Amino acid sequence: MKKVTVHASLEYDCLIGSGLLAECGPRFAAFGGSDKIMLVTDDKVASYYLETCEENLRQAGFRVYTFVIENGEKSKNSDSYLRLLNTLAEHHFTRTDSIAALGGGVVGDLSGFAAATYLRGIRYFQIPTSLLAMVDSSVGGKTAIDLPAGKNLAGAFYQPSLVLCDTNTLDTLEDQIFREGCAEVIKYAVIGDEALFASLEKTGVGFDRESVIARCIEMKKDIVETDEFDTGKRQLLNFGHTIGHAVERCSNLAIRHGQAVAIGMALMAKTLLPAPEAGRLTDLLRKFGLPVSCDFPAEQIFDAIRSDKKRKGNSLTLVVPEHIGNCVLQRMPMEDLKSLCVRALNQGE
Amino acid sequence: MKKVTVHASLEYDCLIGSGLLAECGPRFAAFGGSDKIMLVTDDKVASYYLETCEENLRQAGFRVYTFVIENGEKSKNSDSYLRLLNTLAEHHFTRTDSIAALGGGVVGDLSGFAAATYLRGIRYFQIPTSLLAMVDSSVGGKTAIDLPAGKNLAGAFYQPSLVLCDTNTLDTLEDQIFREGCAEVIKYAVIGDEALFASLEKTGVGFDRESVIARCIEMKKDIVETDEFDTGKRQLLNFGHTIGHAVERCSNLAIRHGQAVAIGMALMAKTLLPAPEAGRLTDLLRKFGLPVSCDFPAEQIFDAIRSDKKRKGNSLTLVVPEHIGNCVLQRMPMEDLKSLCVRALNQGE
Repeated sequence: MKKVTVHASLEYDCLIGSGLLAECGPRFAAFGGSDKIMLVTDDKVASYYLETCEENLRQAGFRVYTFVIENGEKSKNSDSYLRLLNTLAEHHFTRTDSIAALGGGVVGDLSGFAAATYLRGIRYFQIPTSLLAMVDSSVGGKTAIDLPAGKNLAGAFYQPSLVLCDTNTLDTLEDQIFREGCAEVIKYAVIGDEALFASLEKTGVGFDRESVIARCIEMKKDIVETDEFDTGKRQLLNFGHTIGHAVERCSNLAIRHGQAVAIGMALMAKTLLPAPEAGRLTDLLRKFGLPVSCDFPAEQIFDAIRSDKKRKGNSLTLVVPEHIGNCVLQRMPMEDLKSLCVRALNQGE
Repeated sequence: MKKVTVHASLEYDCLIGSGLLAECGPRFAAFGGSDKIMLVTDDKVASYYLETCEENLRQAGFRVYTFVIENGEKSKNSDSYLRLLNTLAEHHFTRTDSIAALGGGVVGDLSGFAAATYLRGIRYFQIPTSLLAMVDSSVGGKTAIDLPAGKNLAGAFYQPSLVLCDTNTLDTLEDQIFREGCAEVIKYAVIGDEALFASLEKTGVGFDRESVIARCIEMKKDIVETDEFDTGKRQLLNFGHTIGHAVERCSNLAIRHGQAVAIGMALMAKTLLPAPEAGRLTDLLRKFGLPVSCDFPAEQIFDAIRSDKKRKGNSLTLVVPEHIGNCVLQRMPMEDLKSLCVRALNQGE
């Protein structure tokens, strides 16, 4: 087992190892507080892990309530959010009760936002079961739901009290979902760790899970500790995401987040990195079975970016790769971004 | 004009004086950021002040959007909240844009919660137009909406960037609404300022607005600076509110917040203070035209308290008056609270 401690507005541990799911009860109970816990998950994850988790929490003395959403990004909406809040209220959850998020990014983001806002904030725990959630969304306290106008438009910065990454849960992930997590792992390598990139080139998807996940969380921890509230350096984590989010929206969420980020990274690299380095990234993404382009017209992608929430006035902060292992933030006028989109998408494969 | 500066997670000024409404444009513009502002208000307040405010903001260079809710507590719900978030998103509000809350506690709480959560937090300004909002809800960063199960069940701690209390706006307040603000003023006097209490006994509703409002905000500031996140001392501000909220709920919001708090304070005093002191408070409340009892059976009040969000397990933290000018926090088993309700309501008038 590996441990990474995050020193943000709340200090908390992220534990990474096999079999941690079956330890959630005593580990959560150690935080004290009262004994009610709302276990939030989705129907797919529930079929594998809900029973184990519920049982383990019960044995540790918790009164366990469950809230199960439908699997998929479409559940990360205001309906689920309000239903969850109302469920907490109906069961008279108080400020010392807590929420546990068992699942991927959707479950984690939704649960975290509910925890951040129910009674102006109650404790929550993350039990990420997807690779994407382990290396990215479960750590750092960004919680959110989507609005009709776009992804993550409502949310809060609110740190979990503990993150339990049970690497065994990755065994039941669909291949495609595992690969979308790999896109985020590759993102970490590009923005800050050339050695990790090189090791992924060697291992492909067979990388050592515990150490690679821990390495990604360490990088995230460093960034979050510098810029918890996302006013500067934390934006580096958005590498590939500006175009990625636009691709997701253009596909009406048919293209998954990780796949869309892979496309976003590939397009950025093609346009902004020297050809050999861009090729290295494209090759690695392909090795991981990830897409590196899309069929949407540049105009449509650009229109989707225009409504990006990070846009300030007539420009946007983009994460620009300088070389594999280093990215910088750069303000870019919308005009330039438009021509970047055109160039990126016209180059084709 | 008087100024109170609050040093919370954000440092900000509360300005109290006549005519401040007509200065909102330049005062908000001084914060920089971009030029979009969402002016949130209700239909009643809009009829008096929206035009002045809108015009003043426009002259200061803002692109002003407006969001008008129906007057009254019933608008402080998840529907208004989501509509406001979606309106911000539709108009492409970014992280450097802002919200201004022009109105009473409902407008302020709703706007603050939207500001706290839209894009995980954008700037907001408070322009309280009711006495209650000036002395209480606009200062200190407690934002919230109600859920079907109860008041303020969803919200966030999120400080405004500036609070402008234009005492002239109190002239257009309905008498009943002004008096409900007086209940909160009296609350401040009971929990911490016997001299203020004595002066209110002399002046009645004709108190000097600027100085009394500033004094209340000062007291709130002191409490918020000690306990921004409401884990201890800040609960003193809830004097009269445990029973008050229950009375509000039992009346299905027909009894207004301030009136309900007056009832809550009177019942607490009757039960817990020596008769002469209790009489002093009851007399003052009556002098201000506020109610001091209600017709709901003790059982019903107690049931409403049972679902109080502040309840932890089988007890509740109550604000107990020791004498006029001093209150303390005390954990009370639910059993004892039940008999307190019975005693308070059976004593009658």
